[in-house]
Amino acid sequence: MQKPIFFEKPIYFLSHASAVGAEEGKGPLGECFDFCDPSCRFGAKTWELAESELSRITLSLAFKKAGISHRDPDLLLAGDLQNQCVASSAAHAALGIPYLGLYGACSTSAEGLYIGSSLLAGGHHLHLAAVVTTSHFCAAERQFRLPLEYGGQRPPTAQWTATAGGAFLITDEKPEKESAKITGGMAGIPIDSGISDASNMGAAMAPAAAHTILSFFEKTEWDPIDFDAIVTGDLGYEGSEIMKGLLCDNGFPLLKNHIDCGTLLYNPSIQDVHAGGSGCGCSASVLSAHFLPLLEAEKMKRILFLATGALMSPSSILQGGSIVGVAPLVMIEGYGEDERL
Amino acid sequence: MQKPIFFEKPIYFLSHASAVGAEEGKGPLGECFDFCDPSCRFGAKTWELAESELSRITLSLAFKKAGISHRDPDLLLAGDLQNQCVASSAAHAALGIPYLGLYGACSTSAEGLYIGSSLLAGGHHLHLAAVVTTSHFCAAERQFRLPLEYGGQRPPTAQWTATAGGAFLITDEKPEKESAKITGGMAGIPIDSGISDASNMGAAMAPAAAHTILSFFEKTEWDPIDFDAIVTGDLGYEGSEIMKGLLCDNGFPLLKNHIDCGTLLYNPSIQDVHAGGSGCGCSASVLSAHFLPLLEAEKMKRILFLATGALMSPSSILQGGSIVGVAPLVMIEGYGEDERL
Repeated sequence: MQKPIFFEKPIYFLSHASAVGAEEGKGPLGECFDFCDPSCRFGAKTWELAESELSRITLSLAFKKAGISHRDPDLLLAGDLQNQCVASSAAHAALGIPYLGLYGACSTSAEGLYIGSSLLAGGHHLHLAAVVTTSHFCAAERQFRLPLEYGGQRPPTAQWTATAGGAFLITDEKPEKESAKITGGMAGIPIDSGISDASNMGAAMAPAAAHTILSFFEKTEWDPIDFDAIVTGDLGYEGSEIMKGLLCDNGFPLLKNHIDCGTLLYNPSIQDVHAGGSGCGCSASVLSAHFLPLLEAEKMKRILFLATGALMSPSSILQGGSIVGVAPLVMIEGYGEDERL
Repeated sequence: MQKPIFFEKPIYFLSHASAVGAEEGKGPLGECFDFCDPSCRFGAKTWELAESELSRITLSLAFKKAGISHRDPDLLLAGDLQNQCVASSAAHAALGIPYLGLYGACSTSAEGLYIGSSLLAGGHHLHLAAVVTTSHFCAAERQFRLPLEYGGQRPPTAQWTATAGGAFLITDEKPEKESAKITGGMAGIPIDSGISDASNMGAAMAPAAAHTILSFFEKTEWDPIDFDAIVTGDLGYEGSEIMKGLLCDNGFPLLKNHIDCGTLLYNPSIQDVHAGGSGCGCSASVLSAHFLPLLEAEKMKRILFLATGALMSPSSILQGGSIVGVAPLVMIEGYGEDERL
């Protein structure tokens, strides 16, 4: 049974970092990211290795900000969109951190924060975990769709896989410097709505996001207005509208505080990204570069962070399979008294 | 830092099940599996969908044995070898169980049991989790190597991806019927030894398995002789020898109680599987069909269960990348007084 969990003691962000490619650097959040490589190559020879390097750079930046050694974490939870999540495993093998590979497609950031914070809060003497997720436009295009050189036309519902990474160091020990904290979370129910169009992943993920939101508020005493933002990962313009429609159909009040990371990453009037951003790095980089700083600056007090994943493979699409959506969430709060539900 | 964790209260196996294909059914453990489809198709049209159906059947059998509804678990942790772990997500979308997708290659069974048992033992009011992992020979061959129709010759170090699934229902509530239990675990350090031959995954995984074993006994007061078996997932004949050599090089006493699941699944004198079995379903099905029954029958008292994963993708191999090995473990005990370390 789907259960929201709330921690007796919160799990703190010790540090976090983001790194992006060209389009993301030119977007509205461009100045907010810690690192941008306009070549999108990150010094590597292939797009696949570039994503690995992006993952390594992003996590290194988080270590640097926290002022700790890369050998300190008790666990590393990581994932990406490449087949067999190889961008992540290749990136971090040299670190010597116990590794838990995750695959939740673009929902991997929230999945990692949910599992990581739950493990730290579980009293197992695990005190520090690293969570890092990435995606790379060029690696994703040739893996899921067509090589860039083909120049295929994209339908209006297609999303733009962000070349982006987000890394988070989380701990059960209250840091000296005040920080945002994870106070609870909930795993998402996978939902198959029969969508088989890989160029419309917003439609495939929206029902899962709507379900997670409905379920969370049904099962807890929280109200949507208790949150400064209800953040979804990468529904994009198309998926966000569908999700709002589904919530409305279920008698849920209009979500005035919904923001989708995929709609924040680019400027649609000058950047041709169609239905908005997507990818494991979309929600992760926007959380690190935009929402956590707002919580740290006390401009926000509390957010719900749902990343959204479209579970499918190139083969499953070619075989006519449908795309399963999933949307795990974590609740993130700013400074102030540690509150318990 | 790599830390073994031990639970204050153990996590029990409420039930478990296994299902296999033709070769596994003809092997030495053939009679022990709960279900065998000699056609390997499991009623599906494609090998990829067959693996999905295998995953669904295996988990259904575990539900049936436990006499519970498929809607009861608080979490479902699942993974497989297909790109984007799509066999698992497609199989279980209809169940309505909160889903956490994992990718640890052939180590996913132990990764799932480690994360699942740690989450249940964490006091988050999560009481029942399902863990299911699968692999399918025909789906894996055409994804990682060559389509079966090509009839490619396999080198002696190549392993045979098992058509097999294992499912486990684990709970923090002591079942009425006595059962085996997970009392602790440890995540594995990913190790890149520079092996780039996808037909010698035993060599790529052996250093990670050796590291996990050395680290576990160095960091705890347990001794290898405290265990009836130190079980590895799928090092096969080649990898097992390499692991023993590495342990010996590190001054570790000769492991007399080491058993590898990949060497149990087939009869090498009449089955042409070269270096032994592999795949996410290899360790999972052998744990369910062989080791848990031995613990339940009090023929064994305590085992260490390390599944072994080779983290790589077809693209990473074609680009000359090396294969990263990883080996998480769980400690499993039989009946008797709940012991604490």
